[in-house]
Amino acid sequence: MNGEFDLIRTYFRSTAKPASGVLLGVGDDAALLAPTPGHTLVVATDTLVAGRHFPADTAARDIGHKLMAVNLSDMAAMGARPRWALLALTLPEADADWLAAFADGLFALARLHDVSLVGGDTTRGPLTLSLTLLGEVPAGGALRRDAARPGDWLGVTGTLGDAGLGLALALGDAALREQVGGQAAFLRERLDRPTPRVAQGRALAAHIGQVHACIDVSDGLAQDLGHVLSQSGVGAEIDVARLPLSPAVREHCVRTGDPSLPLCAGDDYELLFSFVPEAGDALREVLDFTVIGRVTAEPGLRLLDEQGKRIDRATPGHDHFR
Amino acid sequence: MNGEFDLIRTYFRSTAKPASGVLLGVGDDAALLAPTPGHTLVVATDTLVAGRHFPADTAARDIGHKLMAVNLSDMAAMGARPRWALLALTLPEADADWLAAFADGLFALARLHDVSLVGGDTTRGPLTLSLTLLGEVPAGGALRRDAARPGDWLGVTGTLGDAGLGLALALGDAALREQVGGQAAFLRERLDRPTPRVAQGRALAAHIGQVHACIDVSDGLAQDLGHVLSQSGVGAEIDVARLPLSPAVREHCVRTGDPSLPLCAGDDYELLFSFVPEAGDALREVLDFTVIGRVTAEPGLRLLDEQGKRIDRATPGHDHFR
Repeated sequence: MNGEFDLIRTYFRSTAKPASGVLLGVGDDAALLAPTPGHTLVVATDTLVAGRHFPADTAARDIGHKLMAVNLSDMAAMGARPRWALLALTLPEADADWLAAFADGLFALARLHDVSLVGGDTTRGPLTLSLTLLGEVPAGGALRRDAARPGDWLGVTGTLGDAGLGLALALGDAALREQVGGQAAFLRERLDRPTPRVAQGRALAAHIGQVHACIDVSDGLAQDLGHVLSQSGVGAEIDVARLPLSPAVREHCVRTGDPSLPLCAGDDYELLFSFVPEAGDALREVLDFTVIGRVTAEPGLRLLDEQGKRIDRATPGHDHFR
Repeated sequence: MNGEFDLIRTYFRSTAKPASGVLLGVGDDAALLAPTPGHTLVVATDTLVAGRHFPADTAARDIGHKLMAVNLSDMAAMGARPRWALLALTLPEADADWLAAFADGLFALARLHDVSLVGGDTTRGPLTLSLTLLGEVPAGGALRRDAARPGDWLGVTGTLGDAGLGLALALGDAALREQVGGQAAFLRERLDRPTPRVAQGRALAAHIGQVHACIDVSDGLAQDLGHVLSQSGVGAEIDVARLPLSPAVREHCVRTGDPSLPLCAGDDYELLFSFVPEAGDALREVLDFTVIGRVTAEPGLRLLDEQGKRIDRATPGHDHFR
């Protein structure tokens, strides 16, 4: 197996070019990095397991993209500049085509965000992919989950529920496929190739003091907002009619009479954040977002209809550990 | 599955106490760390797969120990002070007993080295464990593989081949079990609960300038020394009779007439390093080691017998990707 192992090692080594802040990259027992003085280090690990975090038929290139994207999204949620990555790759066999496509997807997105791969480990076993990402933020400038305050407004980037609908399509819902028609490709793209909101996160962090809490919506709006609320010791009201929806999701909610998809479906990787209302105009100049509700002193999450009346709800968010 | 997931999350969160340099630990999208000014960041990831990196019958506590140990050993090889860890844990089911024992083993060794767990991800899937370790070394003070120079002596800590013999025992070699007798427990301990040479690595790094290259012996002396030689553009001579052996390994080599075990067996996690001969006495005051050979300008690895005559050899090191 030595040959196969060398193939992988060489592949990932050759793509790791000398890069900013990297004193020693792939090839020693550890990488050596030069942190920026006066900055806080931001670190996160996310794992993707085949059949759990992506459908089994997902293209290798998209798996590479998604692995980088979900980790970049964690950096975005902190307002950090992503810098360095370490890859722990466990795969059943060293298939050169698969590896080339996977690495293409991973590195294309890494390059876009100026992230360099500085280390990792490749082992044989059932397909499991873990990435550790290191980023930086000026000292005191990180966005956290626990900083929401009563009176804050709640904003969200992009649209919600697209990846959830894309997953239903990927799992073979024929009626849905007919319903969404030409929007199927868009929905599958939202599932397989999410766009981490790194620039938006950094723009929000530049307004820290007026922007309070931030989280990325990976497990569904209700569940992720729930983390912000419990960790901040506050509650919130959401105006359900204001949730930003793509035409496909809007039509699906109308057709099924069920508004829960954009509240509960995961994998959209949009940013949810709280900010003082006076900062709204300044924020609109640096990123696109939709105001969907407000933070309250009263604990709990309340959903309001267009008349401001409370809606009962049932479903919690989605749980990756299923 | 929400309940099980919460169990794991809570378990690892509760054990992560506020610690040195940790501004924000487990529980947000990422951890926030304060690197030490004037220091280089040292980062490494290592993965263990059940049945490949440890026998299937390995106790959960030992798996936790070994996962931390192999990563600490990477820090040791760079001469770094280990500080922070992120755990990517994929496991088939949330077995509370297994998790408690695994965490016990992991955290006991982490505490010993003042390492705090600051983040991670837990997913369901075939048992796969990845740890990312972050450490620090004063700027310019890291030991590397590519720094060996002709004229250096080669030193190694501890004894070689014990874990390899332990693996043969674990795989059920009955004749071997009879042969090693009362030393079986020692050998299995060397396999399952390796001791990372962190203090020794830091002592070596404190003599950087006189200590040149360093690597940890994870894949076997011949293979790991081979990395040092190729990356340094040098060769080496090893005095086979000087290799440090435990009584069990020495007896095994004599009995089988095969001296390859301490050269080729992996998983000992001792440090192999090169240093200027004049530094030997100073180094002996800060760590125990055995001089096993010297670095040469002529490339390649040559094995010498007690008369200084060259021995032919066949076997390369062991490859985890098998």
